[in-house]
Formats: sequence, C-alpha cells, structure tokens
Amino acid sequence: MQDFYNTRSNGLLTLKDSVCLISKLDSVKLAQVIVISINAQGLRDLMEELKEYSLKNKIIVLCMKGIEIGSGKRLSEIAEETLDASNHVAVWLGPGHVQEYLNNIPNCMVIDSESDSVKEKLVKEFSSELIRFYYGCDLTGNEVGAAAKNVIGIAAGMLDGLKLTTLKGALMSRGTREIARLIKAMGGSELSAYGLCHLGDYQATVFSEFSHNRKYGECLARGERYIELAEGYYTVKALIELGERYQVELPICKAVYDILYQKKDIHTILEQLFERDLKNEF
Amino acid sequence: MQDFYNTRSNGLLTLKDSVCLISKLDSVKLAQVIVISINAQGLRDLMEELKEYSLKNKIIVLCMKGIEIGSGKRLSEIAEETLDASNHVAVWLGPGHVQEYLNNIPNCMVIDSESDSVKEKLVKEFSSELIRFYYGCDLTGNEVGAAAKNVIGIAAGMLDGLKLTTLKGALMSRGTREIARLIKAMGGSELSAYGLCHLGDYQATVFSEFSHNRKYGECLARGERYIELAEGYYTVKALIELGERYQVELPICKAVYDILYQKKDIHTILEQLFERDLKNEF
Repeated sequence: MQDFYNTRSNGLLTLKDSVCLISKLDSVKLAQVIVISINAQGLRDLMEELKEYSLKNKIIVLCMKGIEIGSGKRLSEIAEETLDASNHVAVWLGPGHVQEYLNNIPNCMVIDSESDSVKEKLVKEFSSELIRFYYGCDLTGNEVGAAAKNVIGIAAGMLDGLKLTTLKGALMSRGTREIARLIKAMGGSELSAYGLCHLGDYQATVFSEFSHNRKYGECLARGERYIELAEGYYTVKALIELGERYQVELPICKAVYDILYQKKDIHTILEQLFERDLKNEF
Repeated sequence: MQDFYNTRSNGLLTLKDSVCLISKLDSVKLAQVIVISINAQGLRDLMEELKEYSLKNKIIVLCMKGIEIGSGKRLSEIAEETLDASNHVAVWLGPGHVQEYLNNIPNCMVIDSESDSVKEKLVKEFSSELIRFYYGCDLTGNEVGAAAKNVIGIAAGMLDGLKLTTLKGALMSRGTREIARLIKAMGGSELSAYGLCHLGDYQATVFSEFSHNRKYGECLARGERYIELAEGYYTVKALIELGERYQVELPICKAVYDILYQKKDIHTILEQLFERDLKNEF
C-alpha cells in the first residue's frame, strides 16, 4: 500500500499526474461519484465507517460481486441501508478486466441502478472506445447473477481438476438455469442470469486459467493446497441460504457447498448430480 | 467408406459383432428407429430417396444441426414433409462428443419431439451412465438453437484469430440473446437458446480447439487458407433469411454473414458492432 502511494503504480498501471491519490476516508466528502471495490463481506463495515460523514447527494458505484452471508442481502441493499435517501447507489458489472483494457482490448459491461438518470450519467461519463456499456434494468438479477458466477467458476475448476472439462458446456447451461430460477423467485428477471453480469463473465470465470475461483476449484479437485479462499467460497453459503428461503432448488451450488463446507467426496457428489431423475429441460 | 466396411472401425471406435453394418438404403424398412446423421443441407435429397420405401410407424431421429437455405425450414420439418403421418420425427442434440464418451467422460444431451411417448421411449432406450438426457419441450427452439451455435462458433474463432479471446464472454451473452429473440419470434421459447442445444454446446463450439466452426473462423481472421467450409457457413445464410422474414435484428449473425458472403473487412465490422447505440441489455 505504501509502495503504491509512492510509486503511483500497481505493477500494471501508473496513475497520471491528474489523478489525486488520497488514503484518508474523509475525502469521500469531496466526491460526486464514489466507486467502491473491496471484498464483498467487508462492505457493511465500510458503510458503517462512512456513516460519520453524513454523505448527501452522492452516487455510490459498487464494483464488487457478492451476497452477504446471514442476511442474504445484495450489496446495493447494504449500501442503501446506511445512506441518506438523497444518495444513489449503482452497480458496475461485467466481463471487463484491467489487464485487457491496458492492452487496448475492448469489452462490454453493464451499469445498473434504481435511478435512470444515474445510469445515464454514469454510462455517459464512463464510456470510452474500450467499453461498450449496456443499461441494466434489473438490479436484483444483476447483483445476484454477478455474485453467483464465482460459484460456477469454482464448479468449472473442479471439472477441470477432474479432467471433465468437456462438461463445462452442460455446466454453463444448467448453472445459468438454476441462477435464473433463483433470480426469478427473488423478484428479478430470469434473463439477467444470461446477461453480461453472469453468463457474459463466463469466459473470464469458467475458462480463463487466471480465474481465481476456477483455479481454486481445480486445486481442490486435485487435492492440492490453495491457501487463499476464493470469493465464491463465501457466496455459495449465501446462495444456499437464499435457495432455502425462496424454496429454489440449486443442485450445482449445493454440490459446491457440500464439497466445500460439508467435506463431501467430490466424485460421489458428481455422480449424484448425474443420477438425479430424468426430467424436462426447462 | 470401403475401409470402414472392412475394418468395422473409424479410427476411434470398432463396432461390436452384435452391430450389423449395411450400406443399402432399403434396410431402413427393417428398422424401428432410424438415426440420421448427414450434412444438413443434404437432408432433403435423402428424404426424397427414402420416399420409395413408403416408411410407416418408424421413429426418425435427426442428429444434425442446420436450417435449410432458401426455405428457412427446420430439419424436422423437412423430414416430416415427405413422410407418412404414422411416422414420428425426433431430434437428438447437445454437447456430447464421441471421443469423450469413448474416454468414459459423461455428458448431458436433449431429446425433443412433438410426441411425448416418442421422447420417453428414446430417452429410455438411449440413456446410459455416460449420457444424462433431458426432455426437450420446444422443437423450434432446440433445432434453431442447435443450428445457430455453429455460427457463434465461427464468430468465436474470429475473435481468437484477432487475439480478442476475452470478448468471448460478451459474445456468449449477446449471441445467445439474439438467437433467443429469433426463436421467440418463430414461436418457440426464448429459453431454449440457453439450453443444452445451444449454450450447452458452447464449451465444444466456442472454446474447444477442435471445433471445426471455431477453427474456420480463426483461420479466416488470420487470413489463412481453410479449404473445407464449416457447417455454420451455410447456417448463417439461412439465419439471415429468417431474421428478415421474422423482422429480428441479428447483429452478430449479420457480422459473420457480411464477412463470409459480402467479403467485408473483419476489423471494420467489429468496430461497427461496438459503435452501435448504447441501449438496454434486455
């Protein structure tokens, strides 16, 4: 952190002189737009810390992916709970990656918010030749979808670790399906699971060798040690809680949960997934 | 062909003695279930040839993927046109591949037909530890989706050839979307684009280095020669015709079509895709 402050570089990108670097939280008072990118389960604590600045008329943009364990709340809900009603919360999701943008490779992303004018303002400000933005129209679906893709990433890694890579096609089709069902039960649009927030991020999450969640699942399946937990490890617990609350069957999430939290045998779990009753696809 | 007849092997699989190998078309009269797997645009000629056998009470299973150029007809429609009404037509689709099955790697597939009893009979007969079948409930969606995935495969290969592999996430999300719109306009269920017939086959078609359609697109983008045309080359023409007939915008199919048939510049076409108006995701 101190290093970043001195060199103004994170190893990938060096900040231009026009970018002001501040490590004091109270500088949020000066901002019009506040972009937050931290670990998802840590958002509530940050929002508590921000309370003392009594923020008003700000736009808070969340760039993280997760669901709070215990409450099952979406991140925008957590942010809104502690903020004055004059503020607006938005989410910025999708498959763009900083390494690719630095190599001038464009991508598509999505901005969503309850406020149309906030979406328009952000898309206008953030658009460039490198990012084609879409307006999201389903905050519930986009946030749940974005969080859940990390769990599908872990499942994909497990398939890779078991040399069952070819099953990732079926994983994509059946994984999106159960997340779509959950989103619908929560009042969102099932199509959002097939949007940029979830399916649109599968190249990076399900196929890229750099995907943290995929790598985590792969190491686990191979019985290799992997010290750092992946974000999907936390999300799957929250999703299982949501599945129970909304009475939605989530067979793939449940399989990942059983392997991670119940220490069930990965081969047995996979066989059970295959032996479920034959049924209609949709 | 003569070689296959003598050795009873295609290099991958050697037929058991219990399998009878016949090269005379009139043997279809003996069959209860007739499984057809030829090039899609050749189906009409085969069905014409079959007319002289006046087939009755047979189940015809189509294992191919395509839409007829000119008529825009689905393959099951073509088969039904020439058959007596006592016959039933079914389709067998999804991501299973013979090489993988031979290595004991399981997969999920889908059987669809207008007749529930035919679906049940086929799923029961064809099921094994290696194939988990789902019952399809949308013949239009499943056939159009299966055909269209070859076009998305060509687009994916073009991205690979241009070193824009990271855009395959957005391709998956936006590609499924336009195929879903077309299926819906044709009277099918838009969810079928996200089923095993289309999205479920993306691992094999969009990501596998062995995918014929992907490879074709990659060579094209690199300016390399590729003598054998891919099935998606024909399908994209039929899809563009269907898009016009049903008034559905198909920007990705149109891009592939313009590059393949209008000899447009691939970089220009891609830039145009990115410069379209900002809009809602769904």
